[in-house]
Amino acid sequence: RIYQKINDRWEVCVSLSEGQFQQVSFVNGIATIRGGTHVDYVANQVASHVMGVVNKKNKQANMKLHTVKGYLWVFVNALIDNPAFDSQTKETLTTRQASFGSTCELSDEFLKKVSSSGVVTNLLSWAEFKLSKELKKTDGTKKTSIVGIPKLEDANDAGGKNSDKCTLILTEGDSAKALAMAGIGVVGRDHYGVFPLRGKLLNVREASHKQLMENAEIQNIKKILGLQHEKKYDSTKGLRYGHLMIMTDQDHDGSHIKGLLINFIHKEWPSLLKVPSFLVEFITPIIKATKGKSVKPFYSMPDYEAWKEDLGASASSWTIKYYKGLGTSTAEEGRDYFEHIALHKKDFVWADDKEDGEAIELAFSKKKISERKDWLTNYQPGTCLDQREKRIKYSDFINKELILFSMADLERSIPSMVDGFKPGQRKILFCSFKKNLVKESKVAQFIGYVSEHSAYHHGEQSLASTIIGMAQDFVGSNNINLLEPRGQFGTRNAGGKDAASARYIFTRLQPVTRLIFPKDDDVLLNYLNEDGQSIEPSWYMPIIPMVLVNGSEGIGTGWSTYVPNYNPKDIIANLKRLLNGETIVPMVPWYRGFKGSLKETSSKATGVTYTITGVIEEVADTKLKITELPVRRWTTDYKEFLESMCPIP
Amino acid sequence: RIYQKINDRWEVCVSLSEGQFQQVSFVNGIATIRGGTHVDYVANQVASHVMGVVNKKNKQANMKLHTVKGYLWVFVNALIDNPAFDSQTKETLTTRQASFGSTCELSDEFLKKVSSSGVVTNLLSWAEFKLSKELKKTDGTKKTSIVGIPKLEDANDAGGKNSDKCTLILTEGDSAKALAMAGIGVVGRDHYGVFPLRGKLLNVREASHKQLMENAEIQNIKKILGLQHEKKYDSTKGLRYGHLMIMTDQDHDGSHIKGLLINFIHKEWPSLLKVPSFLVEFITPIIKATKGKSVKPFYSMPDYEAWKEDLGASASSWTIKYYKGLGTSTAEEGRDYFEHIALHKKDFVWADDKEDGEAIELAFSKKKISERKDWLTNYQPGTCLDQREKRIKYSDFINKELILFSMADLERSIPSMVDGFKPGQRKILFCSFKKNLVKESKVAQFIGYVSEHSAYHHGEQSLASTIIGMAQDFVGSNNINLLEPRGQFGTRNAGGKDAASARYIFTRLQPVTRLIFPKDDDVLLNYLNEDGQSIEPSWYMPIIPMVLVNGSEGIGTGWSTYVPNYNPKDIIANLKRLLNGETIVPMVPWYRGFKGSLKETSSKATGVTYTITGVIEEVADTKLKITELPVRRWTTDYKEFLESMCPIP
Repeated sequence: RIYQKINDRWEVCVSLSEGQFQQVSFVNGIATIRGGTHVDYVANQVASHVMGVVNKKNKQANMKLHTVKGYLWVFVNALIDNPAFDSQTKETLTTRQASFGSTCELSDEFLKKVSSSGVVTNLLSWAEFKLSKELKKTDGTKKTSIVGIPKLEDANDAGGKNSDKCTLILTEGDSAKALAMAGIGVVGRDHYGVFPLRGKLLNVREASHKQLMENAEIQNIKKILGLQHEKKYDSTKGLRYGHLMIMTDQDHDGSHIKGLLINFIHKEWPSLLKVPSFLVEFITPIIKATKGKSVKPFYSMPDYEAWKEDLGASASSWTIKYYKGLGTSTAEEGRDYFEHIALHKKDFVWADDKEDGEAIELAFSKKKISERKDWLTNYQPGTCLDQREKRIKYSDFINKELILFSMADLERSIPSMVDGFKPGQRKILFCSFKKNLVKESKVAQFIGYVSEHSAYHHGEQSLASTIIGMAQDFVGSNNINLLEPRGQFGTRNAGGKDAASARYIFTRLQPVTRLIFPKDDDVLLNYLNEDGQSIEPSWYMPIIPMVLVNGSEGIGTGWSTYVPNYNPKDIIANLKRLLNGETIVPMVPWYRGFKGSLKETSSKATGVTYTITGVIEEVADTKLKITELPVRRWTTDYKEFLESMCPIP
Repeated sequence: RIYQKINDRWEVCVSLSEGQFQQVSFVNGIATIRGGTHVDYVANQVASHVMGVVNKKNKQANMKLHTVKGYLWVFVNALIDNPAFDSQTKETLTTRQASFGSTCELSDEFLKKVSSSGVVTNLLSWAEFKLSKELKKTDGTKKTSIVGIPKLEDANDAGGKNSDKCTLILTEGDSAKALAMAGIGVVGRDHYGVFPLRGKLLNVREASHKQLMENAEIQNIKKILGLQHEKKYDSTKGLRYGHLMIMTDQDHDGSHIKGLLINFIHKEWPSLLKVPSFLVEFITPIIKATKGKSVKPFYSMPDYEAWKEDLGASASSWTIKYYKGLGTSTAEEGRDYFEHIALHKKDFVWADDKEDGEAIELAFSKKKISERKDWLTNYQPGTCLDQREKRIKYSDFINKELILFSMADLERSIPSMVDGFKPGQRKILFCSFKKNLVKESKVAQFIGYVSEHSAYHHGEQSLASTIIGMAQDFVGSNNINLLEPRGQFGTRNAGGKDAASARYIFTRLQPVTRLIFPKDDDVLLNYLNEDGQSIEPSWYMPIIPMVLVNGSEGIGTGWSTYVPNYNPKDIIANLKRLLNGETIVPMVPWYRGFKGSLKETSSKATGVTYTITGVIEEVADTKLKITELPVRRWTTDYKEFLESMCPIP
């Protein structure tokens, strides 16, 4: 019981109730047995404070005021000016709060006492109960037939007495399902079912209750396997399938999907991961070497490279084909894989609670951001899961396979310090050198060339915008644009979004580009290789740090970057100082053509902050004229912002 | 007044009312002055019939029963078994209809008489009044400043006393707006405003009231110009701008956008098109020839070709650049165009009510489908608007410029009889011959090659699905696939939608392809030219009619096509008959690998109809086994259909 005499007119006491609001109250000494406005006044104050605390502690709770009140017992003794009641028996006070003639403001201390009294704990467990009840509504059951999931090919014995012999194959997309379907033509449909995943599974560890409930994929998997919320499994007896087999492409995204599935099971049913052979994966070769009738499959790049080195010169008599996607395999190859299924199946094993559990959390939990940074920092190039092992520890999967996905994601989003490029930009520069783009080319045609010659995987549209971005020269874009814009490449009006379609505009290398990236340096570069095709180098070596000239922006796994543009002349001057053994001087960001001003506003350990200001002048008492906007603030957006502040006419 | 004695218990008479339902009624001789269930019974029958008629005559009307009743006056004299009333004064009958002891079914003749009595006309004009009142709500007004349209660059004098001197430039997209902005930097912002259209304007002639009301673009144009619904304009005095200038790309879609704008004005304010110089267009060169410092612009292909022919061999000393999109021009070129604006501006002129009005309707009205077919059938290759004329008649625009868009649309959607290809497929075959695709190539890389070498404009994704479609060989796809599928190109499970991503699959020419399209014939083909690049021929000449082998499907302007697949052996046998001067025999469609049956079900002038049946057998009393689905009925869809018929468990 928490009691406080607020002032000479109000006395309040709060205690706990169990799901039903209770009150004892007096007005001017009269017992208002049904409460009234004075009780509401006090109870609402207490309840809304408690509600805030609960909703903060459990973001999913979505607690309502009336629910909170149900867990309170309130005592109020008040003196009210000219109280009005609902009837002669004076059971309920009806005076409006404004006419009480006094206020009753509960102190922070009092409210704090209330919220630590147990009511918050009660409400939290009620919320948890409610949420888990909702999740249980979507529980699966062990039954022999399932309807409503058209893409599922259910095993004939799933959910029956032989269900423990059944394997559900989860595939990455519909085309992989087609491969699995060809395969189960061989092993039969009694013990094998197939269900295609649509792209990446939700990271359930950070998902809200609503996201979980609305995620069709997760609900379908629960239903197909017959999984039940919060149940502890020590065998797969209660499930419709004894084994869950994941089958993804042999690329980074495939690893990520495996990781997300492991993360899902670990978060919801950690006990299941400990059931031997429950979670397995199906692997396909990443390379096949063919010579006449003999075919040699390889399941990892190091295996292939070791073999190639062993063979020496005679390796060239073999034809090499890369099988990165499951879709690369034909139906016939799919049947062949399933005929020798033992070669392709690997069990995940739970070796150690601490090691395996922590590894999964490290990769997927929001709380482990700084650990994730360390993990990626300590990455050793060449790390690779040994595909000759029959069983894979979860920690090995995370640390030797999934880490490659995270590294690749990082490389895509954060530019190299050496040349300032993200891979897409580097591919474009590589291709403009390879094509010797000194005569102008239609951008649409150049896109075709780039996707043919540099193994660009992320769609024509993204390639178009990267090329256009490299050729833009309006204020706030590049200080030195490496490609020349011929046609409409966008303006400050819309921040470059007003560029014309790639089939209408032309580009070519700027003459200065080859001065910054001298042809003589080309032989020094480490050209990468994708699926046997020689592509762009790991980085270029510009004669000045281009990451400073044109700046950069990006968000990756664990890290992000923001580098403003600098003046090439300042950079060159500093480089000369460096070459002469002099001390270099600090530089201030600079944007070509910008007429506004730039001022250092703070300087911390994490970096210097600048404030960029445009140009505005007063032309009349009620009229301002803006002739320059801050860098990267665009005209159309800014006009919209100004209009939003105008009074509605 | 329409009167009928329905039977010996019911007598009914209906007349008109003006917005307020009226009735005079008797039950067993008692005057029910407030009506009741017997009146409702009759009135509802009449009103729902009338409502149907009105809603059919004006699809936008959305007439409600209670509105219709407001326009009726009903007299009912009925004999009812044991009538019950609301009160002692017997003002309202409350007996339920089921207990009347008789029915009163109004005859069709009676209802027909009612609907031709004037009530329908009254309601139609009421509906029109209501709809136009709604449209008037979005009317513009002549005022000097407009807010809420951030992409509008308003002319300084728009809506003021010099508004008649102002021109609003409507551009095709944001990048064209950037060009116009560069241009009005030259002519000044006092008399020029710019507003970018987002893609194609709505065809208002066939749009519903709701579509019109919800179309932001149309509402914005009304607002910017200050247009008022149903107003007749004999000058532009009441508008915010005196001129509307349309500025689109120099391609077919650009012509379509101009046509849609003309259609919009003609439908809503036909009088405006007769105001001289109200609607104008801004044209840009389609080709520029450069030699040293001299630049020669051309505004139409025939002009350019005539010039080239005149020059003869010396034409090759000029550099030719195609300017199909407004975005091809740089800001500097944009400024140059506006400095010589007289050269680029053309007025549309209304020459003849009949000719011009009918031409616009011919192109855009739903009612003119068969006229449109004739129009396209009579198209003469080489038709072209003479760009040297200063003024363009609307009929000339439709018949000499817009027709080219319709023809191009038709070519994209309906395959050629000669080779059975749509242009996209022809481009792919052309490129596989050009690249000599006998060794397998990754589809993603081949896409790059095609878009570089054949001026393919419709996006990588559409190119990928066309390539995959040409290589598919499952039942119901191609009888002879010209490309070889290596990897997962889709299955009957999902009708080929389960093909893998283009970066995972490989293809090459089938050996048979060059037998059907012999290399020796290549020199006979008429290779097309796009922007100076030699691309695919107008058609290939396969040695057998491929449009019969693989069938075809498509919907274009005025026409559509559906050709089933036929057996190449049947076709060859018929060709041999033809070569030997024998009579050819009718053929029946045939799909490679299909195990079901095909039966002719009807034979009409428009063609023969076939019914295709799968294979189903009864394996037990309550169990059917389907081993073959009809052609182009896919497994997943069919399973979904079967499930939809199952009782919900």
